[in-house]
This record gives sequence, C-alpha cells and structure tokens, in this order.
Amino acid sequence: MSEATAVETSVVTAALLVIGDEILSGRTKDKNIGYIAEYLTAIGIDLTEVRVVADNEASIIEALNALRGRYTYVFTTGGIGPTHDDITADSVAKAFGVAIHEDPRAIACLLERMKPEDLNEARRRMARIPDGAELVANPVSKAPGFWIGNVIVMAGVPAIMQAMLDEVAPKLATGRVMLSETIRAECKEGDVAGPLRAIAERYPDVIIGSYPFNDETGFKTNLVVRSRDAARLAVAAEAVRDMLATLDVARP
Amino acid sequence: MSEATAVETSVVTAALLVIGDEILSGRTKDKNIGYIAEYLTAIGIDLTEVRVVADNEASIIEALNALRGRYTYVFTTGGIGPTHDDITADSVAKAFGVAIHEDPRAIACLLERMKPEDLNEARRRMARIPDGAELVANPVSKAPGFWIGNVIVMAGVPAIMQAMLDEVAPKLATGRVMLSETIRAECKEGDVAGPLRAIAERYPDVIIGSYPFNDETGFKTNLVVRSRDAARLAVAAEAVRDMLATLDVARP
Repeated sequence: MSEATAVETSVVTAALLVIGDEILSGRTKDKNIGYIAEYLTAIGIDLTEVRVVADNEASIIEALNALRGRYTYVFTTGGIGPTHDDITADSVAKAFGVAIHEDPRAIACLLERMKPEDLNEARRRMARIPDGAELVANPVSKAPGFWIGNVIVMAGVPAIMQAMLDEVAPKLATGRVMLSETIRAECKEGDVAGPLRAIAERYPDVIIGSYPFNDETGFKTNLVVRSRDAARLAVAAEAVRDMLATLDVARP
Repeated sequence: MSEATAVETSVVTAALLVIGDEILSGRTKDKNIGYIAEYLTAIGIDLTEVRVVADNEASIIEALNALRGRYTYVFTTGGIGPTHDDITADSVAKAFGVAIHEDPRAIACLLERMKPEDLNEARRRMARIPDGAELVANPVSKAPGFWIGNVIVMAGVPAIMQAMLDEVAPKLATGRVMLSETIRAECKEGDVAGPLRAIAERYPDVIIGSYPFNDETGFKTNLVVRSRDAARLAVAAEAVRDMLATLDVARP
C-alpha cells in the first residue's frame, strides 16, 4: 500500500464503519461521518454507505465483510485504544482471517511519545496489528492506525482521525470529483417539485436533489445539482435557475 | 399500531436507517443519529445499528429488509418530501411487498395546512402511503410519516423528525432503561486500562467503556459504567472510583 500513488479511475467508492457503543447510546455525538463524507467527496471518492455498530466482535466482523466486498475502500473509526473495549484490531484480523501480533514498527511509534517504563501491557495492545497490514501514522498521539486489503482503520477521536485521513489520502485511488452547485429557491419544496422533476428527467445524467430548510421566514428549499462533468452541471443548473426565475422564486 | 400501549419487556432493540445523498456527500451534516440515539436510550430502547444509504431504491430496500428482520423497530429518516428524489415511501412499500396509494387520511392532513388549490401533483406525492400503514402525525408541517410492521418512517428535517418521534414514542414497547454513570479520570486511557480491564472482568454483567478526550491540559479519560440494574451499576462504579483513588487520578 505504501508504494501506491494516486490513480484516477472513473468512480471510486467507499463505506465508513463507525465502531462504538458511545455513538449508539447517544453519549457521544459522532463528528466523523460528516467530516469524512465531505473530505472524500472533495478528493473524488463517493461515500456510498455508512454503518454504525457497537463494540461487539460479531457485529464488526459482519459489517466489515459485507462492506469490504462491495466498495473500493472501507474506512473504520473507533476502538483502537488501549482499553478492554477496544476490539477493532482483533476483529479486523478475524474478518480477514489473518493472525495479529504486537508489531515492532507500532511499538517504535509508541516509544516516540512515551518512556519505555510507561509502555505498560495495556498500551502495548495499541501495537497489535493484523499480519500484512501497513501502519497509518498518527502525528497527534503516535498510536498508529493501519491499512489492510482495502480497509483503513482509524482512531475515533476526531483530531486523530483527521490527521490519519490526511496521511492516507495521497495514497488513495480517486475518481473524477463530483462537482455541485447549490441554488436557493425562495419557496417551499412543493412549489418547485413539478418543474424540478421535469428538469431531472431532461438531465438524467445529472443528480438533482432538493433539501428543505426553515429560516425565520418559513420553509425554503436548496436545490443541489451534481455531476462529474462541468459542462453538464452548468446546463442543468442554468435550467434550474431559469425555472426559478419563471416561477418568480429565484433568490433576489 | 395505534391501539398499542407501552409494554415493558427486557430488551427492546432498534436500528436507524438514514436515507439521503446529502448526508453521504457531506453537504448536510446529520443531526438525527445522535438525537435518536439519546432519545431511545432514555426511554429504554437499545439503538443497536445505524446505516446511512443514498436515495437509491435498491439500497433502501436491501438495508430495510436486513434491519427489520433483526431488530424490534427500524426508524427511517429522510426522503418523504414532494420532490422526485423522495423515494422512501415507494421503497418501503416494495420492501414489504405491498401496494402504495394516495391515502385520504394523509390528504386530509395536508389540507389542514394548505388550500386545496395549492395541493398540486407534487404535494399529493406526500400522501402516498403503503397499504396497511398507520400515519404518524406531523405537527410541524402536516405531511405525515407512517408506521408499517415494525418500521417507522419519519422526515429528515430535524424539527419534524423530533416531533414525529414524540408522536410515536408513547406507542413503542420499551425495555428497562440502561442506566449509566460517567466517571472522569485525570489521566490518559493507558494509565487506567489495566485495572479497568480487571474491573470489567469482575463485573461481566456491567458494560464499562473508556473514552479519551483532550482538553487544554492534555488527554483525559471518561469512564462510563452502564447497567439496567441500579445496584450492579452502583457497585461497579464504586469499584472504578476506588481504583482511580488508588492510582491518585480521581477527579479532585
């Protein structure tokens, strides 16, 4: 993996597997899904599915095996710390059917940050890496993530996850970036839904989404036009703007 | 469903299916997962899995059928508006193998908020309800959600979703509420991981989680002890506090 360079193919997909009881109990509000979604979209990778599962080996293995067969990449967050509930690395090894050992490269990472006498048994757990995996550097707190097959295992703490994503991004295959334009309609969704459908049918190769929101003056609508082709995006967006002008609901 | 009353059984589980391209592209940051997780936990329902899928019929049907066979309830958010990309109701009907029709009860809901002349073809789409479903009232903007089998279909706009959840909550079967206590350790996870594992092994019926965070003075750890049994929670939490005091990392 470490030798890989960015490759442009047509469509590169990804899934995200968020691992952690604390997200499902609502105790911790996930901040990683939105960040990773925006990040991958910007570099030309389509995040196609997200799953959140508990710190449960069977659940992690099942989700991982379902996702890694289906998408170009699977990113995971959470469960790679030193405590008894951190079972991601062992679960990933089982999902791939490989052994897991304390990795001298990972021990070396840990020793960059701590004295040998602080490297207790619990912290050594953070150096358990499935056989055949490459490490993903952690510039924040040193304990590494890893990359095995098409699965990239990252920390759950947002600052650490973000740094790990920066580490792996240059090595990922990427596709053509999905471009988008947001056009605000000063009306409710139902006021534009009919003509919007006609435009969507006229430009089937362009993705057109409609997202209601409310501000102090009531419900409004954001129309989002998306395509990997700048020219197609431009003509479809122009059609949407013309439609809004005709209905007199274009933003002044 | 409408006649159902709250029933206390031992464990009631739920999955959440978030439907929407905008979450996967990162354009919209989901606010519903954390809200629903906290809400269900508080009323005694264990949120056990979350999936996010695109506005794609096959993806919605596959996820829904996987989840509804496995959990007591499945909640969905998103995709029930009037535009061409709102395909949740039709997809749910297909997942259940039932027909879908314009529902006079749903039309009546819409007419509470709009004049008959504003009820255009696009808005009538919001009254399409799978056969056999009960409506879920929408006190915010009237277009209803629905409840079919063990699947509860709600809007994606947070204010509307929250109001719908309030509508259905009194009708849900609920289990014993999962109690929890958070104990802050003034140290890194790796400093308490060993003794914490010993406590977790001593109280296998209690769930003990460890969550690192960083504040201005560096990495700290929240230890979260969870049980449905208040007495067991109390003894395990006491064991954690004693351990922290012994290590001299209890919060002053």
